[in-house]
Amino acid sequence: MSKFWSPRVRELTPYIPGEQPRERLIKLNTNENPYPPAPGVGAVLRDFPTDHLRLYPDPESRALREALAREFGVEVDQVFVGNGSDEVLALAFQAFFCQPQPLEMPETTYSFYPVYCRLYGVERRPLPLTADHEVDLAAFSSDSGGAIFANPNAPTGHGHSREAIAELLGRVTDSVVLVDEAYVDFGGESAIPLVAGHSNLLVTGTFSKSRSLAGLRLGYAVGSRELIEGLTRVKDSFNSYPIDSLASAVAIAALEDHEHFEACREKVITTRERTRTRMERLGFTVLPSQANFVLVTHPAHDAAQLFAGLRERGILVRHFNTEALRDYLRITIGTEDEMESLVETLETLCG
Amino acid sequence: MSKFWSPRVRELTPYIPGEQPRERLIKLNTNENPYPPAPGVGAVLRDFPTDHLRLYPDPESRALREALAREFGVEVDQVFVGNGSDEVLALAFQAFFCQPQPLEMPETTYSFYPVYCRLYGVERRPLPLTADHEVDLAAFSSDSGGAIFANPNAPTGHGHSREAIAELLGRVTDSVVLVDEAYVDFGGESAIPLVAGHSNLLVTGTFSKSRSLAGLRLGYAVGSRELIEGLTRVKDSFNSYPIDSLASAVAIAALEDHEHFEACREKVITTRERTRTRMERLGFTVLPSQANFVLVTHPAHDAAQLFAGLRERGILVRHFNTEALRDYLRITIGTEDEMESLVETLETLCG
Repeated sequence: MSKFWSPRVRELTPYIPGEQPRERLIKLNTNENPYPPAPGVGAVLRDFPTDHLRLYPDPESRALREALAREFGVEVDQVFVGNGSDEVLALAFQAFFCQPQPLEMPETTYSFYPVYCRLYGVERRPLPLTADHEVDLAAFSSDSGGAIFANPNAPTGHGHSREAIAELLGRVTDSVVLVDEAYVDFGGESAIPLVAGHSNLLVTGTFSKSRSLAGLRLGYAVGSRELIEGLTRVKDSFNSYPIDSLASAVAIAALEDHEHFEACREKVITTRERTRTRMERLGFTVLPSQANFVLVTHPAHDAAQLFAGLRERGILVRHFNTEALRDYLRITIGTEDEMESLVETLETLCG
Repeated sequence: MSKFWSPRVRELTPYIPGEQPRERLIKLNTNENPYPPAPGVGAVLRDFPTDHLRLYPDPESRALREALAREFGVEVDQVFVGNGSDEVLALAFQAFFCQPQPLEMPETTYSFYPVYCRLYGVERRPLPLTADHEVDLAAFSSDSGGAIFANPNAPTGHGHSREAIAELLGRVTDSVVLVDEAYVDFGGESAIPLVAGHSNLLVTGTFSKSRSLAGLRLGYAVGSRELIEGLTRVKDSFNSYPIDSLASAVAIAALEDHEHFEACREKVITTRERTRTRMERLGFTVLPSQANFVLVTHPAHDAAQLFAGLRERGILVRHFNTEALRDYLRITIGTEDEMESLVETLETLCG
């Protein structure tokens, strides 16, 4: 605590990201992709004219936004890009959710959302999940300061259909509905096609998961022109050039390799379903997942102890020490070999 | 304007960065370095293991902060890094300047500061420059919500000595004094050695100017542990990983090449002084500069017309259409050849 800090900063409880260990571990704790980015990425780095780095990047990141617009079948002024989807989310909180009414979100969801609420002084109204651990879309009200949820949700993995989101948008029309699709490419259904008919829908996404570029920090939002303009106003009052020239070139190369993208996500989905079957055989309850992770619990084994046992044996998973999640482990889907090691180690620990 | 925007966002007047033209121009408008980054940068890009990009970067950017700490002779927990010094400045506004008392700054300085004030609801008390166009350090009061200025100042180019800053810090002890040293390497005197004795001093810097890496988006702050902790609390409530893995590796390579750094800045300084002499011969008043730009005015020629005439002839400089700066052009120091073209073109326009 320091007398020099702004009053609100004294009250912050920052987000704690998953550990980035220095030793060699099987790393299944931060939902990274186990496969490398598209092969074109290496060529971009090798051929990049370093003299170009002395110049500021395009403050509008037009080339990258055009590539995303082509990918999603929208106009370029319906696309916003940021330094990771975390930055996009933070700017969206400032742009849309600083309202007199509270922001509604699931009680269990991406744990950065409540952190943004504290940073920007936004009141939060948490909505309990259903008995099946699903985001309760029916619980969102039509007179809130906005709605935000991850779809598929984190760390549960369940995803709602586009039709269900459309139904929500039929009811909630006066405030922004933000659907965070960080994990959608592993079996979820994107809400982006609904953007055309709903000026209050903002869909965010990331290059960190299905594009294997967590190290590059690139996220985006797709929405109506008026929402993208709102985000841009905040961005241009915060940092004119959040996307560096290298990251932009690399991201475009990754985005345009559809074959690599499809191959990687299919491998992750196949491995996820195999892992689920094998863990169920060990007595685990594995929540159905449309993401690149599974949330699991075992009736006879303490999650914190399993976490510690795995860590001792060189496997890092995620354990959230909150009331709702204390009994669970969130396990990222790695390669077939990594998941084989995980299941074998759990066999030892549970056997 | 949209009903979905947060109330404060409706009132924003975003910062307008200098143009990044697509056509080939002599680009003297955004204070970029005319020389390429250190040769080691190319090697880093060629050898970077692309598979590493699938993993999140170190959220603490420890390797880069250690390199900066070595460079400046401070401890690693006295160093903060961000996505360009603009992000560092924005986070500093949130961390320190959201106070009941107004923030003091020169009336003419980096024009992003008033934008941050509006974004974060900070009241601003502008202090006129002295008759010599210098930041009036004596005008800062001891009971404000903080003090911020660029040293050397932008767009004037004048820099105060370390001794003068020390005197200010002797008087202003109860709020944060932020010295923005974006341009210090072109002949200014850094205040970083004063950090040891003043827990309220924060010094910011950038890789965009003297390190020729504007395209990479890297800035930093050096200060007491309590100020760096305050910045880190805000950063960890905003974006866990603002520095991507590639940018960090590139920046470390650039930082460690002292020879290239010295050679480039000396060339810029030499060219600046030559340009000044030649422009004075054309009748311009050229403000003394310790930066990689000069602010100039001509008693017989309208600055806006000169700007347009240069632009027509393929030379881009910066003209700020504000009352204080309407009669001036800010001209970045390019290569000898570029400045030769500039002076020749001005000769035509003024002759």
